[in-house]
Amino acid sequence: MSERLIVIGGGGAGTATATIAKRLNPKLKVTLFTEFPDIAYSPCGIPFVHGREIDKFESLFLSTVDRYVEDGLDMRMETAVTDIDLARGTITSRNTHEGFDKLAICTGWTWEKPKVPGANLEGLHYVKDIRAAMEFDKELDSMKRIVVYGGTPIGVEMAGNLAHRGLQVEFIDEGPWALSELLDPDVAEPVHESLTKRGVTLRFGTRVEEFIGDGNGRVRAVSTTDGQIECDAVIVCLHKIPSAQLAEAAGLKLGTTGAIMVDERMRASEPNVWAAGDVVEVPHGLSMIPIRGLTGSHAYAQGRTAAFDIAGQDLKYDPVWIPWGMVAGDYTIGGFSIGETLATAMGVPYVVAKGVGVSRARYFPGATRTNVKLLAEPDTLKIIGAQIHGGEGVKERADFLAFAAKRGATLHDLAWMENIYSPPIGALFEPVAIAAQNGLAALRDKAAA
Amino acid sequence: MSERLIVIGGGGAGTATATIAKRLNPKLKVTLFTEFPDIAYSPCGIPFVHGREIDKFESLFLSTVDRYVEDGLDMRMETAVTDIDLARGTITSRNTHEGFDKLAICTGWTWEKPKVPGANLEGLHYVKDIRAAMEFDKELDSMKRIVVYGGTPIGVEMAGNLAHRGLQVEFIDEGPWALSELLDPDVAEPVHESLTKRGVTLRFGTRVEEFIGDGNGRVRAVSTTDGQIECDAVIVCLHKIPSAQLAEAAGLKLGTTGAIMVDERMRASEPNVWAAGDVVEVPHGLSMIPIRGLTGSHAYAQGRTAAFDIAGQDLKYDPVWIPWGMVAGDYTIGGFSIGETLATAMGVPYVVAKGVGVSRARYFPGATRTNVKLLAEPDTLKIIGAQIHGGEGVKERADFLAFAAKRGATLHDLAWMENIYSPPIGALFEPVAIAAQNGLAALRDKAAA
Repeated sequence: MSERLIVIGGGGAGTATATIAKRLNPKLKVTLFTEFPDIAYSPCGIPFVHGREIDKFESLFLSTVDRYVEDGLDMRMETAVTDIDLARGTITSRNTHEGFDKLAICTGWTWEKPKVPGANLEGLHYVKDIRAAMEFDKELDSMKRIVVYGGTPIGVEMAGNLAHRGLQVEFIDEGPWALSELLDPDVAEPVHESLTKRGVTLRFGTRVEEFIGDGNGRVRAVSTTDGQIECDAVIVCLHKIPSAQLAEAAGLKLGTTGAIMVDERMRASEPNVWAAGDVVEVPHGLSMIPIRGLTGSHAYAQGRTAAFDIAGQDLKYDPVWIPWGMVAGDYTIGGFSIGETLATAMGVPYVVAKGVGVSRARYFPGATRTNVKLLAEPDTLKIIGAQIHGGEGVKERADFLAFAAKRGATLHDLAWMENIYSPPIGALFEPVAIAAQNGLAALRDKAAA
Repeated sequence: MSERLIVIGGGGAGTATATIAKRLNPKLKVTLFTEFPDIAYSPCGIPFVHGREIDKFESLFLSTVDRYVEDGLDMRMETAVTDIDLARGTITSRNTHEGFDKLAICTGWTWEKPKVPGANLEGLHYVKDIRAAMEFDKELDSMKRIVVYGGTPIGVEMAGNLAHRGLQVEFIDEGPWALSELLDPDVAEPVHESLTKRGVTLRFGTRVEEFIGDGNGRVRAVSTTDGQIECDAVIVCLHKIPSAQLAEAAGLKLGTTGAIMVDERMRASEPNVWAAGDVVEVPHGLSMIPIRGLTGSHAYAQGRTAAFDIAGQDLKYDPVWIPWGMVAGDYTIGGFSIGETLATAMGVPYVVAKGVGVSRARYFPGATRTNVKLLAEPDTLKIIGAQIHGGEGVKERADFLAFAAKRGATLHDLAWMENIYSPPIGALFEPVAIAAQNGLAALRDKAAA
């Protein structure tokens, strides 16, 4: 009889594990369980449909259930798994047991719920499921004032997009500036400007104390440390929590972050069990401290790693350097690893190299300023983090720097890197090199002083 | 008495050498000679002003002579140097000798002249000097039909831009496809399409046999192996020739390419003489074969290297991996090091990894296809070259890949690189990683067959 793989979860990690394992080993019998009716859509696109930058939710679907079935997968849609029995090698779903030889747990994450009165009122919306987003989008048509609560990337995207749609947006964040767990204040500044320009009211250092109902079980206002704010709905964008309950109940080890511990092949603590995506933790390349809550591309890559191992092929998942990037308002920001704020909080010593360049020859139409800040180890000058903001090329530079850091590149390497100079696409001086050169010059001056 | 540096040449290499040497050693007396009346403009922008993508030639000036004088440089404008006497430590200019302690030769390049009858007729235009370009631009207003001769990058830029301006453009190239000394035919194909769409008539494999005059010393037609073509002017864009005559006459060693030989500090073959820019040759990172005729950013970086050494500071110029990129018609192309055509011509063994991705989530407005072709060493799978074409991010990816290749990155490293997924700026799969993964899969299939 052919070997049987059960995958729990239909997000990036789950679909990658299932489809790649099947492709690498066509004899494998692969069953994928998901509690949702849809598969293979891009949740990351949801804010932009709300903001009408993308025309319709249907555009976010990348594939169909039928396509997966055609590829030979047994797809169990709208089917929650309620128990895992590792000793017997079974899962329970709809009160039925199903056996597996290999199991991949890709149960993802859920939003942290606010721990204040009124958190169960209707009108508190969480951005995740596309069907819920479609319903909410219709409701938005008759709404005027929205509170976005939580300075996380999705919170910032939702605030910018809802303002773009013409709604009055109140952005409430306990942090001192936008994305304060990720971003340095100098990079947050243009983000604030851009959100404000879109009409978003920013309230930092503000805590929600209560969600106030209208008497019919629906939110009508938010009571905050900065006063009461009337609203038609609240978008809650606090932290992501790993959905590790099933795995924990099955006896799998969780790590310090509350996510499933896995090795470099995405194997969990028991034999024949893999886990991938937002439900696992992986080591950070710089600190080797376990972290979680990464991106869709990380989830997919982890699923692929699990699939390779499941199919008996050799692929290891390296510690992550986490290039990241997003559009906040109309402003693009990004980076990799840590910024100054996080380095300071973690007690990581660093030197800074900062520079500003342009994305094209400065006289060429469309040229934008590109700001680069590099963090480097004081002794070796190896780069350990970066924050980039500006118009074009933020994503490509962040990817590049994460790759370079992983391979031990120093400020010297970056300062004298070769770069393309061609007026419509690149300036004489590459912004990354400018930053590194400035940093080296500052160190020379400091040494000379 | 303070030390005296003479710099010959006011292009990227010359200005970098002069200004950086002065900045690093303010006591240095720096004199810069240039035969032209202008300094510090961007010749690379000229085709785009002709094409009216940039509004005016004045935009191309990045600085003024006065600024250099304020910075303490002795600027000798419109002053050709006619002789160098290394034994005496003097140069001759306007029949006067001037002494130097250190000399930097940054005399650049000139265009190859066609070796056929009529090559001295008026109306043959060479794209280089901005004043000549300004004059020519006025003439263009009353012209209708232009021949561009030579499938070099500037030739392609001129053809695309003059067509954009509404002129009838005949593009004549001896090569079998556009940029055939640089580009592979699969990448040339979309370039041809884009140029054709702009209205350029392409004539490849075509040689000019004679420039035909109008009886008044001005070109009126071009006789080619593909027939006679009437025209109002001819833009000649053949090869770049290093302007090494002065250096050679002074007894400096030239290399196999006809350019000045320099070491990694840009020192020429005699003491106290440096050279930088298009007049020197430097080793290619892959083959270590000397090459020349690189870009403005290379010229600047070489000038900086010379300046560091002149000022007694430690900086070495590494062998080059030559990231390059340009807009051809409306299409962006780029790469680094070599493509398949050049690898084959050089007898360099390689495997190919090809892939197509998108620059943003595929459903996001503005997403463009990004095609990546990587060349790798068959045994180590270290990358040795790339060609990239598509819309956004070509320059950044080419810079990245040149950097990665220099540090020995392999297809494995690129296949599993981390990448940013954020709908407005990056897709789930990075095009470079897709190419590397495809290449590895093809190698696995081949090994299994």
